[in-house]
Order: sequence, then structure tokens, then C-alpha cells
Amino acid sequence: MTRSDPAASVPDVVRDASGEALAAVRGLGAGVPVLAFDVGGTDIKSALFDADGTAHGLRRTPTPIVDGDRTEVLIERLGVLAAELRAAHPDVEPQAVGLVVPGIVDADAGLGVFASNLGWHDSPLRDLASVRLGLPVAFDHDVRAASWAERLLGGARDYENAVVLVIGTGIAGALLVGGVPYTAGGYAGEIGHSPVAEGPICPCGARGCLEAVASAGAIARRYHAATGIVPNGAKDVIARAAAGDQAAADIWNSALDALTLSLAQLTAVIAPEAVVIGGGLSRAGGALFDELRERLAARLSFHRLPVLVPAELSGNAGLLGAALRAREVA
Amino acid sequence: MTRSDPAASVPDVVRDASGEALAAVRGLGAGVPVLAFDVGGTDIKSALFDADGTAHGLRRTPTPIVDGDRTEVLIERLGVLAAELRAAHPDVEPQAVGLVVPGIVDADAGLGVFASNLGWHDSPLRDLASVRLGLPVAFDHDVRAASWAERLLGGARDYENAVVLVIGTGIAGALLVGGVPYTAGGYAGEIGHSPVAEGPICPCGARGCLEAVASAGAIARRYHAATGIVPNGAKDVIARAAAGDQAAADIWNSALDALTLSLAQLTAVIAPEAVVIGGGLSRAGGALFDELRERLAARLSFHRLPVLVPAELSGNAGLLGAALRAREVA
Repeated sequence: MTRSDPAASVPDVVRDASGEALAAVRGLGAGVPVLAFDVGGTDIKSALFDADGTAHGLRRTPTPIVDGDRTEVLIERLGVLAAELRAAHPDVEPQAVGLVVPGIVDADAGLGVFASNLGWHDSPLRDLASVRLGLPVAFDHDVRAASWAERLLGGARDYENAVVLVIGTGIAGALLVGGVPYTAGGYAGEIGHSPVAEGPICPCGARGCLEAVASAGAIARRYHAATGIVPNGAKDVIARAAAGDQAAADIWNSALDALTLSLAQLTAVIAPEAVVIGGGLSRAGGALFDELRERLAARLSFHRLPVLVPAELSGNAGLLGAALRAREVA
Repeated sequence: MTRSDPAASVPDVVRDASGEALAAVRGLGAGVPVLAFDVGGTDIKSALFDADGTAHGLRRTPTPIVDGDRTEVLIERLGVLAAELRAAHPDVEPQAVGLVVPGIVDADAGLGVFASNLGWHDSPLRDLASVRLGLPVAFDHDVRAASWAERLLGGARDYENAVVLVIGTGIAGALLVGGVPYTAGGYAGEIGHSPVAEGPICPCGARGCLEAVASAGAIARRYHAATGIVPNGAKDVIARAAAGDQAAADIWNSALDALTLSLAQLTAVIAPEAVVIGGGLSRAGGALFDELRERLAARLSFHRLPVLVPAELSGNAGLLGAALRAREVA
């Protein structure tokens, strides 16, 4: 490609910050072919799913950057990505598109209501994408779509009432009630932006949000602020804590306490059968899951404790959810 | 009556601790006649609703006291109360019974799973009541039944997704999702027993429960502990705070902060359209509602704030909910 339009210039596939390649995508099962896009503040995952449910051309490309509202450059980029996918796989004829984005999403109205790192307010993303791509578009919130994929294909498959929690750079959540996502007009599930402490101030404007204390991003930032050392992510802080670094231990301990408080609130009020935890921090395994199980049981009394299970679809749950949603409108 | 069996000896109607007579019961509307019982740890409210939905013989009588499981004495007492209601109103022929109790309730299985002040564990209250009373019995949790009455007849009538919060001696809650109570096997809605602080230890066994900090009972107890003065209820503590009593102001302020934290959690995670607040503390009016509205808005950012509205059915919501449930099984 020699075009200089930044919205149309698609770099090569990128890998995770951690250096891992994209995880293999679990198949969707048979159904109509669809295009799927999982848009984040940093990158876009895209793929073409065929009639067997196999993903083709899966890659991760940077989300185009402009000041302010990124709607226009994003829609243009989706058009280019779609054209490339279709050109590379002419035998697969997609019938619909699934598009999922972060922030506050009104899926019914097709609006990106608000996304702090994408700059839009009440942006009619569904209709704009449909015009640009010439196909019906299913539009949803990224983590709600991911929870739907975990419900149909992954860690939540056995639970009608579950919470899916993604702990990575931020913390996002989604509720499954009676087997389906509970949305509340797009406002439900903001577990990352529920208060658990008096501070620090969160980029969202509130104070003491769970995300500002206990996300993988916050754990790394807090360790840097406390010691001047730039850790290699939250994983490194957890390893330092285990090796006897007191500052790391204090930060990891307070993050676990904050996560426990949020889980205790969820348990008392919603009483989900399961909490499915994904995102980068979930790779901490027993250091996370065993600690949370133990602390949650100690924090509550007569309550019915949820099972805490790892998400199974890892970084691809949002993309799979987008594809599942696309098949609903095809 | 000259019988000496304590379970069968029914004292006269009692009045509220505050001296108020029982509030007039709003009519249910037309339907089959039913008996309704709202059982609490202290007293039982009972009434016979006729085909017009008018309550007859409404009264509040003490819950019989025995050590341990109170199932047997309760069921016997319900039999006596039912017989008296039917004898006093021979023209009204009830077709079913509504029975609501506190604690953890498995409405589907008809079980009182747990109630700290009534001593039972997995007690088959529905079937026992049905045998004793010779009628089909609808069985439910008291505050969920109250939320159902508020949904059909009261403050939640305009809201599909709402939380009903009763702040009195304790704090109990119930969730309405998609217009119907959300139960999670009886474990949902325990807002009073969700952690908001590191202490004090709650009678439920957990620590820092909202109920232990911010219920009307806790506010009065905490003022007594801080000053040695026995206040005339939470209302008195609030009045003392307004009059410049620093200890009262500190306690009331911390109670409002704790309630705000719980409301902020509900808003972020469930995003209800409304929170309907009843119970003794709700009579504080603006001192409660205006403060909570202001503090909740200050505590959050992009979130969709619920409207905070007073419950309309006051102390009779549980009884009305029991009667509504009874009509469903008649």
C-alpha cells in the first residue's frame, strides 16, 4: 500500500505488549459468514468468519489516532480492513458485520454514547459502519459482547447468572442475568468505575474507583510511583511481592483487598453463580484466584459465594462476541 | 381466650414503637379474597383482603418466642390468627394465603433457608403453612414481596429496573430487573450485608456491613456508644446533628457516606432507573434524600444516576406483597 491517508494505511499485524502472539480463536460453530471488529483505544482486532465458524485473517492493527472524536477515521479504517479481508478471502461472502467498542454503549440505538479514549459522544457508529460496509451491522459493548461469547462458548457456559470481569489496563465488567446480558441502557457493569476507596482520583473523574486501585495498569503505575522503578507490568509487581519486595507486597495486597471488596458487593447484592475473570491480570492464576477465593470467604458470612473461574476465550472474547452478534442480524 | 399455649395466645393489636398506629393499607384492587401474613422477628402483620382488595382485621401481633427454631410456634400462631380473621369476617372466604418472612428465602422451594432471628434452617414453611391453614400458600421474602407491591402499587410503578431499599432496624433490599424481582435463589439484594467499611463487626458475622453503620438501629446504637446518651431513635440523632451536636453530626455524616458508597456501587454495577427507599429512616425526608442525591452525584462521574424516591406503601408493603402473591396461587 502506498496511500498516505493515515486512516487507510493499515500496518502489519501487531503482537500483544507482552510479546505473545494473538491467541488462537475458538471456532464459532456453523452459521452465516460474518465480519467481526473489536475496537479498543489502542488497537482493532478484525477477522472474517466463514460458514464453519473458522476465523480468517485475524489480526490486530492500531486504532487510528486523531484529536477529539475518532468516529470518522475509525469508520474509514473499518472499510479498509473489510476490503482487505474480503480481497484475501474471495470465497467467503460475509452477510453481516459485528462491531464492538468500549465505553458507554447504547446497543439498541446503535450509539457510542461515550468513550473517554475514543472521543465520541452519542456517535451513530452502527449506522455509519453499515453505510460504509454495505452490510447490516450488529453493534455492542466490547465486554458485554465478550461476556456473551463466554456465555455461549467459554467460562460462563454453565451459569445463567454470572459476572464477567476483565482486569487489564482498565477493569470492565458485564452482567449475565437469566442467561442474557443485562445492559440498563448501556450503563450496567461498570465495576471498574465503582468506588472502593477514598482515592486516588480516577481518569473518569470519580475517586477511588476499583480500576484506579486494582487494574493491572494501576498496579504497575502504583509500583512505579512508590519506588521509582518501572516494572514489567503487574505480573512483575506480583513476582516482586512473592520474592519479598515490601512495596510490591503492599500494592498487591491492597489491590487484592479492593478486588475482594468489589466481589463482596457483587456477591451480596447480585449473588451471581459465577464470576468469570479474564484480562491480563487473570494470567496470575492461583496468585489471583486462590487469594480472592480466600479473602472473599473471610469477608462475608451467610452469603452464597460465587465460583471464581478464569475466562476461556482470553483476548478474543470480544471478537467472538462481535461475530456471534453479527450472525443475529445476518 | 384462656388457653395458656403461648403460640396460640394472641395479644391485642400493638402499635409501632414510635407510637404511630398502623398506616392505612392501600387497596389491592379487585381479585379473589386472600389471607396475608408478613412475619418479622418482632411481630406479625396479618389481614384478610376481600374481593374488592380491602383489608379487614389488619393488626400487628408479637412473633411467638422460643429458643432455637421458631417454625412450629409460628405455624401454630398463623393458624390461630387465620381462624380469628375468618371468624370475624365470615362473609369473606379466602382462597389462598400469602406468607412472607425475612432472611434467606428460597421462594421456589418454599423454604426459609436462614433467618438469624427466627432460628430456622431450610424450614419448609410454605408446605407447613398450607397443611395448617388448608389453603394454597404463596411464600416469599418479605422485602422482595414489598418491592413487588411497590412495583405494582407504589413508588417503583414507573421503573422496570429498580432497587427497593428498606432502612429501619436493619437494612434490606430487593432488585427489580425487567419489571420483576430478581432473586438469585434467595441470595440477591443483601445490600445491608454488603461491606462498606473495615468495621464494626455485624451480627451476621461479617465486618463493616452497611447495616452495621447506617441503619436507623446502628445510628442510634452508635450515638449511645459515643455519648452514653440513649437517643430516641435515629430521628433524634439526626435532629441533634442539625442542632449542632458534633457527635451526632459525625455519626449521621458517616452513615450518609456509607449509604452513598452503597448507592454508588449499585449505580455503577446495576444502573437502576430508581432506588425506592422505605423504612423508618426514609421519614427523615430531605435530610436523607437531598443529602444522598448530592453526595451520590459528587461520588460518581459518567454514570447514569438513579432517581431516589420514597417508598409509598410504608410499613404495609410486605403485607400487600404477600396478598398480591397469594392471588397468584389462588
